[in-house]
Amino acid sequence: MSDYKKQRFKRGMDLLKKMGRENLMLDQKELAPELYDISVGHLFGDVWARPGLSLRERQLVTLAANIALARPTGNHSHYRSSEHLGITRKEIVEVIIQVGHYAGWPTISNAVRQYNAVIQEENDIKKGKKKKRELI
Amino acid sequence: MSDYKKQRFKRGMDLLKKMGRENLMLDQKELAPELYDISVGHLFGDVWARPGLSLRERQLVTLAANIALARPTGNHSHYRSSEHLGITRKEIVEVIIQVGHYAGWPTISNAVRQYNAVIQEENDIKKGKKKKRELI
Amino acid sequence: MSDYKKQRFKRGMDLLKKMGRENLMLDQKELAPELYDISVGHLFGDVWARPGLSLRERQLVTLAANIALARPTGNHSHYRSSEHLGITRKEIVEVIIQVGHYAGWPTISNAVRQYNAVIQEENDIKKGKKKKRELI
Amino acid sequence: MSDYKKQRFKRGMDLLKKMGRENLMLDQKELAPELYDISVGHLFGDVWARPGLSLRERQLVTLAANIALARPTGNHSHYRSSEHLGITRKEIVEVIIQVGHYAGWPTISNAVRQYNAVIQEENDIKKGKKKKRELI
Amino acid sequence: MSDYKKQRFKRGMDLLKKMGRENLMLDQKELAPELYDISVGHLFGDVWARPGLSLRERQLVTLAANIALARPTGNHSHYRSSEHLGITRKEIVEVIIQVGHYAGWPTISNAVRQYNAVIQEENDIKKGKKKKRELI
Amino acid sequence: MSDYKKQRFKRGMDLLKKMGRENLMLDQKELAPELYDISVGHLFGDVWARPGLSLRERQLVTLAANIALARPTGNHSHYRSSEHLGITRKEIVEVIIQVGHYAGWPTISNAVRQYNAVIQEENDIKKGKKKKRELI
Repeated sequence: MSDYKKQRFKRGMDLLKKMGRENLMLDQKELAPELYDISVGHLFGDVWARPGLSLRERQLVTLAANIALARPTGNHSHYRSSEHLGITRKEIVEVIIQVGHYAGWPTISNAVRQYNAVIQEENDIKKGKKKKRELI
Repeated sequence: MSDYKKQRFKRGMDLLKKMGRENLMLDQKELAPELYDISVGHLFGDVWARPGLSLRERQLVTLAANIALARPTGNHSHYRSSEHLGITRKEIVEVIIQVGHYAGWPTISNAVRQYNAVIQEENDIKKGKKKKRELI
Repeated sequence: MSDYKKQRFKRGMDLLKKMGRENLMLDQKELAPELYDISVGHLFGDVWARPGLSLRERQLVTLAANIALARPTGNHSHYRSSEHLGITRKEIVEVIIQVGHYAGWPTISNAVRQYNAVIQEENDIKKGKKKKRELI
Repeated sequence: MSDYKKQRFKRGMDLLKKMGRENLMLDQKELAPELYDISVGHLFGDVWARPGLSLRERQLVTLAANIALARPTGNHSHYRSSEHLGITRKEIVEVIIQVGHYAGWPTISNAVRQYNAVIQEENDIKKGKKKKRELI
Repeated sequence: MSDYKKQRFKRGMDLLKKMGRENLMLDQKELAPELYDISVGHLFGDVWARPGLSLRERQLVTLAANIALARPTGNHSHYRSSEHLGITRKEIVEVIIQVGHYAGWPTISNAVRQYNAVIQEENDIKKGKKKKRELI
Repeated sequence: MSDYKKQRFKRGMDLLKKMGRENLMLDQKELAPELYDISVGHLFGDVWARPGLSLRERQLVTLAANIALARPTGNHSHYRSSEHLGITRKEIVEVIIQVGHYAGWPTISNAVRQYNAVIQEENDIKKGKKKKRELI
């Protein structure tokens, strides 16, 4: 790996830690290590780490895009990293309401279901009912 | 119109003015006045006017959703109201880059083309080459 | 809650009962009571309750939109309310075939899988194998 | 062409005439005659011509799917064939409002703009200002 | 069933066997036999069986479309039929990386999760831990 | 710019030339030079230039993804670069037919209209009626 790629990987991993996301995308690492390097190094090290927007705002617009696109998997972790960065439950609900009016009611239903599932899982972990986060 | 609907319409119109959007959606008024009332009254008076997110953040997440969805029309005005609310060109470009990685490169191309067209139109208006904003 | 909002909530809830949907969206109520009020009051009380289309036709076009958009969750209940309103299995299949040609074959596969799952669950409930509807 | 394909082509063309759509999809004929045969023969002769839904309802669900998907081109003609089949302006507006709540506000804006353009073009043709329909 | 429809059904079924997909879409058969006939006969017998692209390339572009659209169900089987036709794991990963840049990172995450699940299921079947393929 | 970024930019530009795309994305350069660097350097230099699929196949799957997503702008240039790489008109039509069955008929109409417009523009340039390619 070139020095540049090593640096951007480190920058990406540092940011992932700051967001509480350092244990994600490991299935990419397993299937295709080079894809994992693109995700950590390019997406997080070169894009997320850019100046021009605060990390909070970058997380808010990413959460908005993900709620709007309503992909089958991959959204749950963004509710978690939003909370990790200090975005409150009330604020996340506002993003769901606002974006849902632009992307349609089924994206509201979907987001509410996903966010409730994340909240439930966190509670189960706190109470010791569950050991590992499974919603990603 | 009930008092409630009158109030929410006024609240919506006040917000639209604050965002420089008061001359938009007039084609809805022409085709279907009740739809115009839902858009001004419900969408702007009851949703956009909610507390819980600043107006700047509400505009940022809406811009993000619109860039991600890349609908054929309706995005241009959000670059304008973003700037009207003080979001800088640099910040808008960052939203395009960030969201584009979550919604795919064609949404980057599309957003850049739309935003450049808005900037061009504003310049043409300043120089007196154009009298009316046409991109909505 | 203003009188207007109380009235539209009641109108929405009455309609939900007519469609057999009165026990849905309770996860919204749990996460964010104001969102639940918007869904019952605005979406059902102010939009679904509008004149201009019969309830059967409003359900048909909503089913069509949902099949076309193929969101991860939230479609199952519309097969149920369609049947509740007297739309036959044969008619639902025709909507799937027709819309699927406009939204692509994966939306056909997805709709068939969802509708079969609903039919199965209803059978299980009739036979006492299952106590509660879980597909929403 | 086999007898079956000839028959389904005729069935499709007859239906297209009934809907006022017989002069559409000629760009497919020009680029790829076999594709035109699939569109007329399979889509209209074998799918649209199926029993189980009235032609009015088939048009309503197709209009709904198209509004929800908001593709860049191809929607205009469905406002026209809807009116050709007796669906009123008021009903089309209701489909836009209903579907727009499931597919998001930008699909409302987009549909209103398209439908207004179709209405304008029809007026221009009636007044002799325009000779040919161009919105398809 | 007309002779033409019988022939195209056979042609479709032959192709499905060549792709290892002959046991799929049986839920369509159960719900609506005529839809199953359209899927086997039209989609596979009349479309997939067309000349002009090799079967490998037709599978590659279909895999690409499915990854881009990221529908909730229906993608898993295309990783399987791709491998059945000799497309390697390395090549499938490249399609995911390439298409993911045009459809956005969540479609990469989604595809990786689906493909890993298929690989896992195949391993479980080889080891006798599982008897039947369930991911479709 | 680091050496790595210079190298990947050159690798990207070389590939763009090979595809006849070297004059594209200049509006990105104008609005945001760093975005242009990401597009040329990361998307073309680091992704398109990857081994594992031939350039022809990479173009085919990209064309497929773009037809399926049917974004308002940005597709025209891919019909051109496909032809530039030796993919025939007949093959492009097959991609449209195949993908259109997975993404829905409006994506067929849209692709046919775009591809016909590109063919027309190329003819106009050959005949000297037009000087510059405008469809991008």
